[in-house]
Amino acid sequence: MKHNETIVALATPAGAGAIAVIRLSGEKAIEIASEIFTSVSGKVLREQKTHTVHLGHVKDGERVIDEVLATLFKNPNSYTGEDVVEFSCHGSNYIQQEIIQLCLRKGARMAQAGEFTLRAFLNGKMDLSQAEAVADLIASDSEASHQLAMNQMRGGFSSEIKKLREELLNFASLIELELDFAEEDVEFANRDEFQKLITRITHVLKSLIDSFATGNVLKNGIPVAIVGEPNVGKSTLLNALLNEERAIVSDIAGTTRDTIEDEIVMGGIGFRFIDTAGIRKTTDTIEGLGIKKTFEKMEQAQVVVFLVDSTQLAADSEAIDTFKVEIEKIKNKYPQKPLVIIANKIDQLTSNEISLLTSSISNLSLLSAKTGQGVEELKEKLLNFVNTGALRNNETIVTNTRHYDALLKALEEILKVQEGLDSGLSGDLLAIDIRQALYYFGEITGEISNDELLGNIFANFCIGK
Amino acid sequence: MKHNETIVALATPAGAGAIAVIRLSGEKAIEIASEIFTSVSGKVLREQKTHTVHLGHVKDGERVIDEVLATLFKNPNSYTGEDVVEFSCHGSNYIQQEIIQLCLRKGARMAQAGEFTLRAFLNGKMDLSQAEAVADLIASDSEASHQLAMNQMRGGFSSEIKKLREELLNFASLIELELDFAEEDVEFANRDEFQKLITRITHVLKSLIDSFATGNVLKNGIPVAIVGEPNVGKSTLLNALLNEERAIVSDIAGTTRDTIEDEIVMGGIGFRFIDTAGIRKTTDTIEGLGIKKTFEKMEQAQVVVFLVDSTQLAADSEAIDTFKVEIEKIKNKYPQKPLVIIANKIDQLTSNEISLLTSSISNLSLLSAKTGQGVEELKEKLLNFVNTGALRNNETIVTNTRHYDALLKALEEILKVQEGLDSGLSGDLLAIDIRQALYYFGEITGEISNDELLGNIFANFCIGK
Repeated sequence: MKHNETIVALATPAGAGAIAVIRLSGEKAIEIASEIFTSVSGKVLREQKTHTVHLGHVKDGERVIDEVLATLFKNPNSYTGEDVVEFSCHGSNYIQQEIIQLCLRKGARMAQAGEFTLRAFLNGKMDLSQAEAVADLIASDSEASHQLAMNQMRGGFSSEIKKLREELLNFASLIELELDFAEEDVEFANRDEFQKLITRITHVLKSLIDSFATGNVLKNGIPVAIVGEPNVGKSTLLNALLNEERAIVSDIAGTTRDTIEDEIVMGGIGFRFIDTAGIRKTTDTIEGLGIKKTFEKMEQAQVVVFLVDSTQLAADSEAIDTFKVEIEKIKNKYPQKPLVIIANKIDQLTSNEISLLTSSISNLSLLSAKTGQGVEELKEKLLNFVNTGALRNNETIVTNTRHYDALLKALEEILKVQEGLDSGLSGDLLAIDIRQALYYFGEITGEISNDELLGNIFANFCIGK
Repeated sequence: MKHNETIVALATPAGAGAIAVIRLSGEKAIEIASEIFTSVSGKVLREQKTHTVHLGHVKDGERVIDEVLATLFKNPNSYTGEDVVEFSCHGSNYIQQEIIQLCLRKGARMAQAGEFTLRAFLNGKMDLSQAEAVADLIASDSEASHQLAMNQMRGGFSSEIKKLREELLNFASLIELELDFAEEDVEFANRDEFQKLITRITHVLKSLIDSFATGNVLKNGIPVAIVGEPNVGKSTLLNALLNEERAIVSDIAGTTRDTIEDEIVMGGIGFRFIDTAGIRKTTDTIEGLGIKKTFEKMEQAQVVVFLVDSTQLAADSEAIDTFKVEIEKIKNKYPQKPLVIIANKIDQLTSNEISLLTSSISNLSLLSAKTGQGVEELKEKLLNFVNTGALRNNETIVTNTRHYDALLKALEEILKVQEGLDSGLSGDLLAIDIRQALYYFGEITGEISNDELLGNIFANFCIGK
């Protein structure tokens, strides 16, 4: 990728709509735009001020392609930090293609995925973690994932990492300076101060690393396995939860064709409900093939919901006992996993039958997905399993696997530095570990980067961003 | 619909993309935008100049929803003629929805389909036929349909209609004035001049009406029926045509499930290839059920391509005779319809076999969809069937059924006026027919409109335009 070329791409989603935006960025953006754009007022585009909008026509020679608005952003005051022209045209596929083709003929080239944001990073408009947040922001579909991306884009923990990195860099320089005066046995770097910094860094790194588990589920949605036989009322339950929230439902084909996931946003948090079937009431089939799959799904889930048709249990002590055996099996297999046991269809039971049920099975939630009874309580229960305190308090949460890896590696190096300090390691050896920790810090914010790393990150972007 | 309310809608296609544009229009557009937008520079939005762009944040109270660019258009210098603010935000579904919801809470309402363009019409930014062209422009997917819409949007024939209407209106007033002086037997309206005008109007109306047939096919694509047995090489042929042009292919489900149409843009003109099957080589089945369908398809087509597998005919005079009978049947049934007879797979024939074939069947086109031989010639042949002279010469072409109907009705009234002139009809009776013609002229440009008419027109628009 040559970064001095002028790039062009459609910035709005593909397809026909009222308007579409085509973005040109680079040294020749204004020149190319001026060649194909004629303003209605007769003004020359390149002589106009930055951040101004001009009505005119995009023409290929004499042929008018469209009436458009051209918006001018002069470097460095643009998204990429380069000269940028955005054409807001009528949203026909044909017009979009014609204008892009015209820009290509005039010397622009097609932008690669994420290249506008890559340039923003290379031109110092944002650090690497902020650039990565742009992709997360576009993909966000719940309040939680949106807020995480927004926090990260507005600086998030990278400003803190940057500050710590600078302090650490300062100490590294002082320690390396000592090496030049090795024979004089001086200490430029105050070891007490340095110990304090290392303690502080260790604390920050650990809490950031801890936040990843929360961050990951908030970003991607909380996986909830719904266990139970077919027809116990799973879809009625999902619809009931939906009606509470008027939230997004979508069918995501799972990794295997036989798993369908429903995503529901409740209280701003995405929940991915993993449908599992296979548990049978007879204990002898519980180790069967279907059950194996059910356990696999439970493995992936953060929360397990065990749904039972209460009319099948009512006044049938044998069925109740079988059900209790199943509950115990799950509890034994996943002692740490939150389990919600729900008796559905209680609207069809007498109050005596309900009493018998609740006295036989501990912690049983009563629900009628049909009438809505117990739905609100279930929702609260699910939300309580998610520790959203950190999110609400604007605490820093790590959501990006790359950052998580770099933080783990940085912590490893910092712990080596700590060991070195404890054992009175010599400055030259200490310096090596510090440099390595600095490297991983730099990888997060992009102060240290290479083409491969950048390629990997920006390949996940959409074209036009 | 209240036109003094402030409306909001997503103007870019739905879905996630790099950016999305949300458009606010109306009296309170700037007020609402100022309430939710805080510029980074601290500038107050409402104090800024029209056609300027400002970087800032959309906030719901203290919660930052997104970093956006806000573009200001002050009335009357906007698309709608009203105050308009466009937010260019990150293209996440969540953000789009949040910003729109926020605008709704601050007093805007959701725009209805085409309402921005409706307001542009009501505020005199464009006439009705220009407004209709906006929808055509967005739907255009070939050079021909794009140019037709573009011509119409830039004035097209409506300026001519407007001018004729004014002249006619002038005469109508003079004739009506005569009625006030009926006893004095004066003629304010020069009858010779009036006759000239009526002749001119008749000529213009007739040529516009004639252009509709061309306009309609150019706008919607030329329907081409491909007749022939399965496996004669239809899809290879379509692919060969495609490779020539790298054009758009799409599968459009036809009116019945068993008809699939391929659309290919060649030389800027859309062709809809209607796949027909059913013709059998034995003459006795030609009247069968499958054949009936084939004839139905041919009926709808503007051009018929009869494709035959030449290897099936080679050195088989009986098969050739049967084929010739079929050709005659089609020619007899559709004497006016252009017919292209193509022998495919000629790469598998010897030159002797080819000679025999061309000498037996007149006007036979030789083709090898596989090697590409004859493809260019076929393309030229198809393009020649379309009279694009009018298009190339920027002649006015009517494409809109509503305009066509109004033109037909206007012509009818003008012919009545002509009759009246010929028979020396009295001024008061003449005036009635003139007024009626004026009414239909006005319907085209929108000088005469009513809520029902406007409702019908703008309901076909997308939301956000």
